[in-house]
Formats: sequence, C-alpha cells, structure tokens
Amino acid sequence: MTETQAAGAVGTLDGARTRTFSWKDPSAAADRLGRACGLDMLRAMINGELPPPPIMMTLDFDGFEALGEGRVDVYVTPQEFHYNPLGTVHGGVVSAVLDTAAACAVHTTLPAGMGYTSLDLNVRFLRPVTTASGQLRCEGTVTSRGRQTALGEAHLYDSAGRLVAHATSTCLLFPIPPS
Amino acid sequence: MTETQAAGAVGTLDGARTRTFSWKDPSAAADRLGRACGLDMLRAMINGELPPPPIMMTLDFDGFEALGEGRVDVYVTPQEFHYNPLGTVHGGVVSAVLDTAAACAVHTTLPAGMGYTSLDLNVRFLRPVTTASGQLRCEGTVTSRGRQTALGEAHLYDSAGRLVAHATSTCLLFPIPPS
Amino acid sequence: MTETQAAGAVGTLDGARTRTFSWKDPSAAADRLGRACGLDMLRAMINGELPPPPIMMTLDFDGFEALGEGRVDVYVTPQEFHYNPLGTVHGGVVSAVLDTAAACAVHTTLPAGMGYTSLDLNVRFLRPVTTASGQLRCEGTVTSRGRQTALGEAHLYDSAGRLVAHATSTCLLFPIPPS
Amino acid sequence: MTETQAAGAVGTLDGARTRTFSWKDPSAAADRLGRACGLDMLRAMINGELPPPPIMMTLDFDGFEALGEGRVDVYVTPQEFHYNPLGTVHGGVVSAVLDTAAACAVHTTLPAGMGYTSLDLNVRFLRPVTTASGQLRCEGTVTSRGRQTALGEAHLYDSAGRLVAHATSTCLLFPIPPS
Repeated sequence: MTETQAAGAVGTLDGARTRTFSWKDPSAAADRLGRACGLDMLRAMINGELPPPPIMMTLDFDGFEALGEGRVDVYVTPQEFHYNPLGTVHGGVVSAVLDTAAACAVHTTLPAGMGYTSLDLNVRFLRPVTTASGQLRCEGTVTSRGRQTALGEAHLYDSAGRLVAHATSTCLLFPIPPS
Repeated sequence: MTETQAAGAVGTLDGARTRTFSWKDPSAAADRLGRACGLDMLRAMINGELPPPPIMMTLDFDGFEALGEGRVDVYVTPQEFHYNPLGTVHGGVVSAVLDTAAACAVHTTLPAGMGYTSLDLNVRFLRPVTTASGQLRCEGTVTSRGRQTALGEAHLYDSAGRLVAHATSTCLLFPIPPS
Repeated sequence: MTETQAAGAVGTLDGARTRTFSWKDPSAAADRLGRACGLDMLRAMINGELPPPPIMMTLDFDGFEALGEGRVDVYVTPQEFHYNPLGTVHGGVVSAVLDTAAACAVHTTLPAGMGYTSLDLNVRFLRPVTTASGQLRCEGTVTSRGRQTALGEAHLYDSAGRLVAHATSTCLLFPIPPS
Repeated sequence: MTETQAAGAVGTLDGARTRTFSWKDPSAAADRLGRACGLDMLRAMINGELPPPPIMMTLDFDGFEALGEGRVDVYVTPQEFHYNPLGTVHGGVVSAVLDTAAACAVHTTLPAGMGYTSLDLNVRFLRPVTTASGQLRCEGTVTSRGRQTALGEAHLYDSAGRLVAHATSTCLLFPIPPS
C-alpha cells in the first residue's frame, strides 16, 4: 500500500481536540481525467505524481491500492473525529470509503477518453465501527460493466476480517470530449 | 439556524492548503443518549449544552435546526477539501449530510429510553455539487414510523433551491437499558 | 380510472384454486414505443387502442391513470394468488406495482423519439399487505428529470390511505433510432 | 431441482393468449411457519409436503432448491405473460425472483421459533431479459447474519451464465410466539 501524506497533527487544547491537515489543489488531477486510462490515473495518484483527492486528506484515509482492472483496496483507520453522536464512526465516513472503493474500481476499467459519474450509492451498515475496529480495508470490485453503465461494489472489513458494511453503486460512463 | 463552532483556519503553505479544526470528546453526548427524548437531545446540541458530533467539525457542517418532531434541516457549504478527483464534492460528503438529516429526523421522533441505529442509506446523486453550489440545505423527514423501524428521508438542495441529491435510510429502533 | 380487461375466472377444483386470464401480443405496443410521446402512448393503453402489458393481466392489476406529465396512478387489489409463504402479498408483487408506477411516471415526461430503461428499483416495505388491505393505489411521480437519467418515485397506499411501501427507480433515457 | 406443479395450460383464442393455473390455500404453510427450522420448512415445500406459495404458480416459477444453510437456487423461464410494454420481462418479475431467492436464503438460517420479514429490496437491472434468455437461475445467499437482522443477496443469471440482475434485501428477524 502506498500511503497518503501525513495525516496532520492531532492535539488537545483546553479539553478540545484539534487537528491540522493539508491537501493540494485538485484541479491538476481533474484536468488530466480521461486523458490517461483509469488504471494509470489511479496509479499516478498512488505514486505521488498526481495529488490524492482532498477528501482523502480531510477524512484521513491511510491510502489505496489499484490491484488491477476492476479491483482496488482502500484503507482507513477509525478516529474519534469520524464519530457521530452515538459513539461510533458516522455512516457518512463509512459511505465515503465504500463510494471511493466502488467508484475507483469502475474507474480502473475505463480506457483513455472515457469518464464516469456516480448515479447512486446503496449502503448496508452491518456492524458498528469504532476506534477499536482497527484499520479497515475496503475492497472495490466491478460486478457488471456495460457500455453505458457499470455496477461497482464494495465490501468493508475490520482488522479482524469481519464484514462491517457493503455497498453497490451504478456509474454512468461517457466519452470525454478532447480539450 | 444555530451554527456549529468556528470551522477552523484554512491557509496555504508552499502550494498546499492547510486547515485546522477542533472538536470535543463525544462520549459525554453518547452517555446521555436515550435519557432524554430525541428532540431535546438534538436541541441540547444546537444550543451548545452538548458538543456537536465530531464528524460535523471534520466536514465543516454549518449547523442544523430541529424544526419539530420528524423534521430537521442540516446546512453545509461546499469546500475544496470536500472534493473528489473529478473536481466535485465527493459522494461521501453528500452521503454524510443526507445520512445526518435522515437519521436526526428519525431521532426527533424517539421518546426518552429509545435508541436507534441506521441499517442502510440509499443515496441518489442528481446533480454535481461544487463550491459554486453555495450553501446546501438538507431537509430530513420521516416517511414512516413503525414500532421497530422507521424510514427517514432526506432531500438536499443547492442555494438556488434545486434538488441535488436524495436518500432514504431505515433505522432500527430499540429500548435502551437503564444505565 | 380505466380498467384493464376482465381478470379472468377464479375457481376451486378438488381443494385447489384455479384462475384463467388472457393477454394480447405485446409486440404491437412495443413497436410503437418512442414514436408517440410517452403520455400519448400510456393514454392509448388506457383507452384500449393499445393492449395493456401482459404483466398487468398476469398480476391482475385493476388499471391505471395517466394524470399528466410526471404523474400516474396504478391500482391493484390484493388476491390470494399474490401470496408468499408468510401469508402476505409477496414482495415481488409490491415491487411490480411500484416499478410500474415509477417507470410510467418517467415515461410520461418523454417526447416522441425518446425511450427509457430502468437501471434499478429500491423498494421499502413499510407495512404487510393482505387481502384485508383493500384496493391499493400507487402514486408514481418524477423526483428529478435530467437529460440522460430521471429518478422516478412511487408511494403505495392501502384502501385506508396508509403508506405501505415506497420505491425509487433511476431510468436511463436515450434517443430511439427511427425504424 | 424439484419442479413446482404444472404451470397450467397456455392457449390462444381470437388473437388473445389465455393461461390457466392453479394454487393451494397458503394458510396451511403459513400456520407451520416458525415451528420447524427454515431449511426443513423449505424442503417440505420442495418435496410437496407443503404447498408452494401461490405467487410461484402465478408467475410460473420452475422450482427451487435449498442447497444448505444460507444458500438457495430459484428457477424461472421467461414467458410472454411476464412482459412489460417495452418488450422485455417486467422488472417486477425480475424483482420477485430476486426477492424470493434472497429471502429464502435468509430463511434457511433460521432455527425453529424464529420468523422474518423483508424490510427492503434493492434491485439492479443489468441486462434485458426476454424469452430468448432461456431458463434463469437465481442464486440466493446470506451476506451477513446478525441477531436481529440479516442481509440476503441474490444474483440472477441467464441460461448462458451472464449476470442479468442483482439484489440485496435486509430481513428483520424475530421470535415467533408459540401458538
């Protein structure tokens, strides 16, 4: 696994926790979208040639791997700043990891000149996730790849290998007009 | 609308953007869960008696309103640090807002002594969201309230009032044992 | 409401119930798809100019109404032959009614020369449906209509006006090549 | 595979197709629900000791197999009377097969004294299904089995082994009071 940049400092001040993180202008990566095939684009992010998307820094993802066409792994370690009022990781963080894995898996199947957009995300929360869950691994796969749409799927596992959440996501595929 | 605490500083250093934010120990709020009715609990968060959930600070939500039983509004303004590699707000951020609104709407219907957990979240992405979308308003409502489950719903609107995303979420309801 | 043709005879023979129903070759209607606008096409089915789709005869739908652009009502009365082993109407029958209402609502928004296909159907079962539920009314609406996709929605009510099920369905829209 | 009873006669009269089918009072099976474990109950239906659910006769399912705990196969052959106005098998029929497979897979995991009800059904339509698809096989599995809920999953394949649809369904589990 190639790691994203340092998560930034986490501290405590007057009973409040603070965290500082950084990210880079995402427009450079967005401009290159569709000019390379999806797998090359993701690998350029992993090896640091392109900046990772800002959301990965904001939510402090540990990193991701592009394992081949139609297969990625995304890693994240639950933190207190991911929490909802119920004392567990917020469903939106779980959804963000699943969405990333499902969408990136679809992205790896795209040739140069093709783009995609997610039409939906159907998440099933199967077990509570807390800081005791350890590093999570999210496996993104492609269940079906058509000409106009593709169905991405994601399975999220805790550090003990238990399935904690599942999602499917339909992506709309389209040709990107040359710029 | 009651605002959450200051979003923290955003700066630029050597071409990289940095942001610092803070949050409070969420266990105080979690401990009180189920002892008050849901509407009172949410109102205690809004008026600052209880800390807002950390995820709201991490994602820089602007705040939320509890408009009555079965009705909440959540506000968030798209930022660059919400972005995916496609140059739009990441689906996980959109999902987090929708999940919050749907779940909180269900929460407002719970009497003291009842808790809930989200079983799923079905999100429909209808329009791209960017920093040009302006402040988003997410309306959470309760479509159906049974004895054991409730169906929450959320509609997300941009600052021009256009529907940009929709979600439904089934919550499992249960009695909280006295501590 | 314009009714579909007679539901066919239901009888009992040696302890077994029997039912006979009839339908018409659906290819005539399919051939005309996309040549008229969706609303005209549905109205031609309602007034008997085109045969109703066979599934409506198989499942004994009572009929449907096209109430305008983006709005249809579908009617069905629960019968014993709709039942699952749990003693209630099978989820597939509920899904069929919801799918019909959501898809037909989208269809009413299509001009001549446009076709659609359903990408998915997300059903929420909210209350059990039995023969005691009386005639069901299913309201189909269009939540969002884009250039390439549309989101249809359906609410199913029992004869007492209680919401018994809900669904959303994304339809992919496309030009139909002239034949 | 054990077949269900004869599908009934299909004929043509004055240009209209007619079909006659029969089913048995489903209350006998419903009364026994929860008294035997789910796997025994399904096997009693397959070997004819209990009547199959009426919906299987109405939609002319070919039959089903209980392959073990958490695994069933359901078979159906597309017919003209399954058709929608678009000239393909109606999404409701596809949904009915998927719902049956996912729910029965969950049912096979239940001990005597436990019942279930489906909270939802999320269907993805991946390829059109027509009478040219040949006999469909629908594989039902259990993705997650908790104490109060279980997530069933179903994959529908055409006779060439291509995935034509996919679904997930959350079932609520509960003890059945002794009668």
